[in-house]
Amino acid sequence: MAKPNHKAASSNRVSKTRALRRALPRALPRALPRPLATAGDDTAIAALKLEPAELSPEMAAYFAKCEEKLGFVPNVLKAYAFDMGKLSAFVGMYNDLMLAPSGLTKLEREMIAVAVSAHNRCYYCLVAHGAAVRALSGDPALGELMVMNYRAARLSRRERAMLDFAVKLSAEPWSVEDEDRAALRRAGFTDRDIWDIAAVAGFFNMSNRIASASDMRPNSVYHGQAR
Amino acid sequence: MAKPNHKAASSNRVSKTRALRRALPRALPRALPRPLATAGDDTAIAALKLEPAELSPEMAAYFAKCEEKLGFVPNVLKAYAFDMGKLSAFVGMYNDLMLAPSGLTKLEREMIAVAVSAHNRCYYCLVAHGAAVRALSGDPALGELMVMNYRAARLSRRERAMLDFAVKLSAEPWSVEDEDRAALRRAGFTDRDIWDIAAVAGFFNMSNRIASASDMRPNSVYHGQAR
Amino acid sequence: MAKPNHKAASSNRVSKTRALRRALPRALPRALPRPLATAGDDTAIAALKLEPAELSPEMAAYFAKCEEKLGFVPNVLKAYAFDMGKLSAFVGMYNDLMLAPSGLTKLEREMIAVAVSAHNRCYYCLVAHGAAVRALSGDPALGELMVMNYRAARLSRRERAMLDFAVKLSAEPWSVEDEDRAALRRAGFTDRDIWDIAAVAGFFNMSNRIASASDMRPNSVYHGQAR
Amino acid sequence: MAKPNHKAASSNRVSKTRALRRALPRALPRALPRPLATAGDDTAIAALKLEPAELSPEMAAYFAKCEEKLGFVPNVLKAYAFDMGKLSAFVGMYNDLMLAPSGLTKLEREMIAVAVSAHNRCYYCLVAHGAAVRALSGDPALGELMVMNYRAARLSRRERAMLDFAVKLSAEPWSVEDEDRAALRRAGFTDRDIWDIAAVAGFFNMSNRIASASDMRPNSVYHGQAR
Amino acid sequence: MAKPNHKAASSNRVSKTRALRRALPRALPRALPRPLATAGDDTAIAALKLEPAELSPEMAAYFAKCEEKLGFVPNVLKAYAFDMGKLSAFVGMYNDLMLAPSGLTKLEREMIAVAVSAHNRCYYCLVAHGAAVRALSGDPALGELMVMNYRAARLSRRERAMLDFAVKLSAEPWSVEDEDRAALRRAGFTDRDIWDIAAVAGFFNMSNRIASASDMRPNSVYHGQAR
Amino acid sequence: MAKPNHKAASSNRVSKTRALRRALPRALPRALPRPLATAGDDTAIAALKLEPAELSPEMAAYFAKCEEKLGFVPNVLKAYAFDMGKLSAFVGMYNDLMLAPSGLTKLEREMIAVAVSAHNRCYYCLVAHGAAVRALSGDPALGELMVMNYRAARLSRRERAMLDFAVKLSAEPWSVEDEDRAALRRAGFTDRDIWDIAAVAGFFNMSNRIASASDMRPNSVYHGQAR
Repeated sequence: MAKPNHKAASSNRVSKTRALRRALPRALPRALPRPLATAGDDTAIAALKLEPAELSPEMAAYFAKCEEKLGFVPNVLKAYAFDMGKLSAFVGMYNDLMLAPSGLTKLEREMIAVAVSAHNRCYYCLVAHGAAVRALSGDPALGELMVMNYRAARLSRRERAMLDFAVKLSAEPWSVEDEDRAALRRAGFTDRDIWDIAAVAGFFNMSNRIASASDMRPNSVYHGQAR
Repeated sequence: MAKPNHKAASSNRVSKTRALRRALPRALPRALPRPLATAGDDTAIAALKLEPAELSPEMAAYFAKCEEKLGFVPNVLKAYAFDMGKLSAFVGMYNDLMLAPSGLTKLEREMIAVAVSAHNRCYYCLVAHGAAVRALSGDPALGELMVMNYRAARLSRRERAMLDFAVKLSAEPWSVEDEDRAALRRAGFTDRDIWDIAAVAGFFNMSNRIASASDMRPNSVYHGQAR
Repeated sequence: MAKPNHKAASSNRVSKTRALRRALPRALPRALPRPLATAGDDTAIAALKLEPAELSPEMAAYFAKCEEKLGFVPNVLKAYAFDMGKLSAFVGMYNDLMLAPSGLTKLEREMIAVAVSAHNRCYYCLVAHGAAVRALSGDPALGELMVMNYRAARLSRRERAMLDFAVKLSAEPWSVEDEDRAALRRAGFTDRDIWDIAAVAGFFNMSNRIASASDMRPNSVYHGQAR
Repeated sequence: MAKPNHKAASSNRVSKTRALRRALPRALPRALPRPLATAGDDTAIAALKLEPAELSPEMAAYFAKCEEKLGFVPNVLKAYAFDMGKLSAFVGMYNDLMLAPSGLTKLEREMIAVAVSAHNRCYYCLVAHGAAVRALSGDPALGELMVMNYRAARLSRRERAMLDFAVKLSAEPWSVEDEDRAALRRAGFTDRDIWDIAAVAGFFNMSNRIASASDMRPNSVYHGQAR
Repeated sequence: MAKPNHKAASSNRVSKTRALRRALPRALPRALPRPLATAGDDTAIAALKLEPAELSPEMAAYFAKCEEKLGFVPNVLKAYAFDMGKLSAFVGMYNDLMLAPSGLTKLEREMIAVAVSAHNRCYYCLVAHGAAVRALSGDPALGELMVMNYRAARLSRRERAMLDFAVKLSAEPWSVEDEDRAALRRAGFTDRDIWDIAAVAGFFNMSNRIASASDMRPNSVYHGQAR
Repeated sequence: MAKPNHKAASSNRVSKTRALRRALPRALPRALPRPLATAGDDTAIAALKLEPAELSPEMAAYFAKCEEKLGFVPNVLKAYAFDMGKLSAFVGMYNDLMLAPSGLTKLEREMIAVAVSAHNRCYYCLVAHGAAVRALSGDPALGELMVMNYRAARLSRRERAMLDFAVKLSAEPWSVEDEDRAALRRAGFTDRDIWDIAAVAGFFNMSNRIASASDMRPNSVYHGQAR
């Protein structure tokens, strides 16, 4: 399913919802109709008015690949597309961090992304990377747990140490010291792995802020992915 | 669909996941198999060992009604079932707050429940009441927004004032004063409504803490509801 | 003294005060007369205008018993009396938590009430339950210590562990985990006791917020009790 | 009553307590006997072992005057008495701030002392200066309100502005700016008054920390004063 | 002076220091000799052991240019030099943000860098970018003010709005909303400028964390620059 | 050099700055001319208008000694000079704490002063006492580290324990307990030393607030001292 069939998903969703609503204890009066929470998320993707620039050939090819493989271009890329220098710098760093070889699995990197974004309560990143945790793990509830409270998840010692470090680094970077690095080494991480944990955590501390500063909206398709 | 067909949902979910995985840029190596994040959530429902008591006739009837209407008994009720006095006091207060007549719609009360639980990062309440927001609104993303950051949601002025009050009351109750009540009145709430907002917010500040103190686990069925 | 003689207490208070004032180093000019801080606390018991409902027979009997035994009806009950369903749900839960059999003594439950209310700086609950700690312990300064900083009190290891858990659960419920429960077990608490600690702490995290949201005023008689 | 008659106060207190205990709903089992919370407060006045120095003639006279007028020497003075230089510097600054002519009344200065000490949860200063607020105002509940939450007190606009400034200055001094000073001026304070508010608030931010660092214990007589 | 003459600076510094020491009230005994605080900062540049990779031709040229123009290669570049992909992604993004055309002057971008790094108390970034603020402004004290408390600096309305936004975005990104963007527009910033403020603030929220996670040490030469 | 030659320092500074600016990668456009950040710091020393009183003979002698030895009168003394009682109380306490015999070296006391002032982000105290750390240690970067993040400094175990205590006492005095005092004793401090650490930390928690409340400006000469 490269491109989710939105209409079908939507009608299916409504019928499930109706069924559940009937099932709740005592009759539940239907709430007043309200606009969908995702209304506008796919068209008005940020609260800053920035004219799109012409895509460079390299970036045009990258967008085409996204369309082909994901079925859509992630809104963060569209938001950056007002300036090719900024867009390609962002794509370069993102792809290196999240996709290049590392001692961390891709799922681990996405778990860091979501736990950090949960600390910073970043709507865009929680939606987009929550979907990635669900997809990569094949376990939807794991994505929810990273969003809600990673401490409540049943994690391996390695995963827990990794997320504790990433979230402490997000919350009070000034107090990260030798003992914190030592805890990661005791959990089996190499110094290179520690760099990668820090770099992914750092990157989402940046992205969370750019997304919040511009009220960036995630593509609505993410919400239903890998549920 | 009083009882969601888990097998179907699950196989559907896996196939969507596989498709998405294929679709992500660059080949994504499958992460190592790991236990489902919900493993045990339906059987080991809390970290405190409390022997279930015999259900009183009233509570037995209530549990039967849950089974009939929801398809399951919410784990919070099972967690309280070691003591009929505590269980019926909890059920009495819960049903009054969330289901009795009020100037707040049921959806509004559930939105407060989730926004407060997000402030307190309570896994149990976010899962169970996130599902309720999705179901009552027919808008899955609205549930996500309440979990992630209610400030990022497109809300009516009334809804925003209500959640601002509930979250401030959760974060720093000592600083709630006349001006905060006046802001609710300006948004159209009566004094009785203000009481109800405070009572629902207060109740989840209680429940969040009991759930966190006992590591209460939500029924896994909630995760897939009303998506 | 079921009903304190307010006039006598007041004239006695004034004479003590005058004596102390004379005793302070250098002459202290009398501050300008100002209204008593408790002015209105017994009549305008909250900042929300809610018409009292007719008391149900059960609640009328309960109020009468309060009058008979305490000499007054606690203002929190009057504040809830606009709705019999809410009043009886509150009374049911309160009485179960604070008065029903438990591995915690009544004094311990009141100590939790005050330490949690101190964290939340709740005027109503600090006054009413501070008085209860003074009365139940026969030690006025113990009540003060729970209000001011429980860490400065000379407590048994059991009491300290109990209050540390209750206050951590109030301050950052998301970070309560197995190790916190283990600390309570090491201090001699059973799993049932842990539930009760959490339930009392949770209840006052609710009540503190309802009291702050409505600016609930404690009966002025509490201030002089058990000094 | 320069010297409170402790025996009388104590027997009176016990009888009031017994009466209240009888009055509470349902029979309350007496809690196990426990040492008084003030045990040791008058003898082991701090957790640092510092040999008292010989009092200088000036300081000996000052201590004698305290005995004569208050009936006791405040423990903070005894705690400083290991070094005459430090003792007399402390006394000099304290007397200037709290007793010298100022646009602030002595009660206002004591209200600042208690509100700041409540922010810092300092047992010593809350007990000693809470008693002073009770004594100077002739209104015991005003002392309680300063300890519990000054925002819940019925204050004049002038008093509220003064305490808001003092507590903000305690909580986040780095963010005090022109607008904060302007708010004081609008409430009627002169620039000299603003200095005095800041100086008293500053002084208790110092004293609170010295008292907490040394676990300083207030004279137990304060607890019963001006109730 | 492309390369500061360290020996001269140092002997000059010592003689000034000696003079000042003589000048302080009362004789100041010389403190015990202790290693310089910068000892090791130029050789052991981080607490993670990462083997330098061979520089790519592009990066080798960049390092040579740094040596030629600055007289040294900033340690952050050496820290990243274990992996050419990461190094060039970092350099690409850094140069775009800090040096490419923008509605923000280079000094403004450096002021954001330092104010954000002060919020995060990042030693590396405060040293390196504090020097840049001193150099670009020709006003050493401006660099100090950005490090110590930007609110104490005499700033234009534009600068103050810019730094308020950047620091709020660092402290609580979840609460940045339309009103914050509107405040920047009122201060004269375009939407493109707002992006740039957010992007620079975001970048240092990333870099601060990578530097803290790896205990990155700034080149010691920065300390004396542009004083 | 009792009085730094400002003109020379300044022209030297400008020429260094110009050189550095030339050295930065890519041409850096000169920022618009702006007033020096220290403009007014030596003349408008606080945001409160307080008429200087006539200096008492003792204070006049003290000011003369400052002029003679330091080349200037610290602005904090001028700020206090509206009232001789307050000025001499401040000078008395300051000199006792910072200059009298103690188990702490003068450098250690200044390190506490700066670490506490960094916690409170106090411009005046960071500038004045940062200079003192540089001067007393002969190590300019040590002063910077105390300002920026003392945890990043290479400290002896004794120094680290001392600063950890002082900063915890500043941040959350209510939670300082026996274990914190024990940690200082394990690091070799006597109970008298612990008092002195607390007293210096306390004093700067006071001074930081008075300086922030009055927007006190440090003498500009400090910025260049002991670099």
